[in-house]
Amino acid sequence: MLSKNRIKQIQSLKLKKFRDAGQRFIAEGHKLVLDIFKSNLFIESIFATANWLYENQKTLHHLKVEMVEISEKELHAISSLTTPNQVLAVIKIPQRKFNNNIFKEDFVLMLDEIKDPGNMGTIIRTADWFGIKNIICSHNCVEVYNPKVVQATMGSIARVQIYYEDLTDVLSNLHPSINVFGTFLEGTPLKKICFEKNGVIIIGNESKGISSAIEKFIKEKIYINPFYCENGFSPGPESLNASIAAGIILFVAKNFCSK
Amino acid sequence: MLSKNRIKQIQSLKLKKFRDAGQRFIAEGHKLVLDIFKSNLFIESIFATANWLYENQKTLHHLKVEMVEISEKELHAISSLTTPNQVLAVIKIPQRKFNNNIFKEDFVLMLDEIKDPGNMGTIIRTADWFGIKNIICSHNCVEVYNPKVVQATMGSIARVQIYYEDLTDVLSNLHPSINVFGTFLEGTPLKKICFEKNGVIIIGNESKGISSAIEKFIKEKIYINPFYCENGFSPGPESLNASIAAGIILFVAKNFCSK
Repeated sequence: MLSKNRIKQIQSLKLKKFRDAGQRFIAEGHKLVLDIFKSNLFIESIFATANWLYENQKTLHHLKVEMVEISEKELHAISSLTTPNQVLAVIKIPQRKFNNNIFKEDFVLMLDEIKDPGNMGTIIRTADWFGIKNIICSHNCVEVYNPKVVQATMGSIARVQIYYEDLTDVLSNLHPSINVFGTFLEGTPLKKICFEKNGVIIIGNESKGISSAIEKFIKEKIYINPFYCENGFSPGPESLNASIAAGIILFVAKNFCSK
Repeated sequence: MLSKNRIKQIQSLKLKKFRDAGQRFIAEGHKLVLDIFKSNLFIESIFATANWLYENQKTLHHLKVEMVEISEKELHAISSLTTPNQVLAVIKIPQRKFNNNIFKEDFVLMLDEIKDPGNMGTIIRTADWFGIKNIICSHNCVEVYNPKVVQATMGSIARVQIYYEDLTDVLSNLHPSINVFGTFLEGTPLKKICFEKNGVIIIGNESKGISSAIEKFIKEKIYINPFYCENGFSPGPESLNASIAAGIILFVAKNFCSK
């Protein structure tokens, strides 16, 4: 049984200011919560139906986590989902210290003002699929602990390390041997780009693209060339969706031309 | 000035049953409405602010369309958007007759129970970017005239021909020379697939993938292989997002191995 105060406290984590103040976020649903169990994120409390607690007792019994049995009605009260799914966890926001070693091993994704929660979540999930372990977000990106982002990552929030940094600072201090790629509406067709085994891949804002402050650090401009027929009457779309562009570039970077 | 009845009538088009009954849908915002002007979709009415009508008078003056000047307050009342954008158009749902000739020239995308409006809109936009002119949806896909889908297409709804058909019927009647590809969580790695200049590419449902009734028609199973390290402890995500998979496959189909 949850007190009114407790319900309010959990509900407050839907808002950024309360996540910032409490340094906690929420994740919901069986798969997502189990993914977080297996990660190095720290779960503080679990609110779950009797059924879920019973079915997962083997996984849960050695965990030092507050576990609270709640009714379906209480789950609806605290959930951010239209169709809540058995379990909700309150998790500590990890304090990650960024350092330049992350650029040595693999590609690092850099997001310049990605605003849409769905895009952000999908980019994190896609990066995870292609084995990317680190994403650096500009401070004006959507916050990744927003419930919509957390759910759209489908569990990848538990595995990918996400940093919020001043991108110009990071890029200024990058070793000159690290290649920096960025998506543009002109540049070298992606098919002709030669990726090595590491580098920074920058994805720009959904409508404005990569900002001019960042553009000057880019060594190779990537263009995912369209195939529609430009007849001057009704040409194609102005651009690709940011998460689609990220997915295509990561596929190529990982599958072609790597040394 | 809009009557209460007119407002109700426009608002009703947010719901599928009224779109079905009236065979009309709504599209909003400057760019989307202009894209529809340039297409062969039939705009019935435009509701716009005085400013927008003034700024676009050159484009509008030869059009035989009902144009209604409305206030910002009225725009808010009829809009599906949180931040309405100057103009809303009511458009006739096109009556398209599907025929087998569409398979001759280029790739055709086939969607098997795509449910998420954001995914559907992004897939249509991405197909348009890669010059795909025809998409066949199963009857249990989300309806493409849903306002969320229309907005997510970013104008591509005006250019791509979308059909709702029984996919097994269409596939049964396909000429044997047409190749049929489908996305699976096993199969031939995408990098090794040889696409020709046409074929059917099937994208499956967000959680269930391609249904078994459809699977038997597939000649080549495509697998977008992950790059995460399977250490048995915390592996990667279960799958890629459906629109990301579609984007990657279309990029490869258009850029590699085409004859």
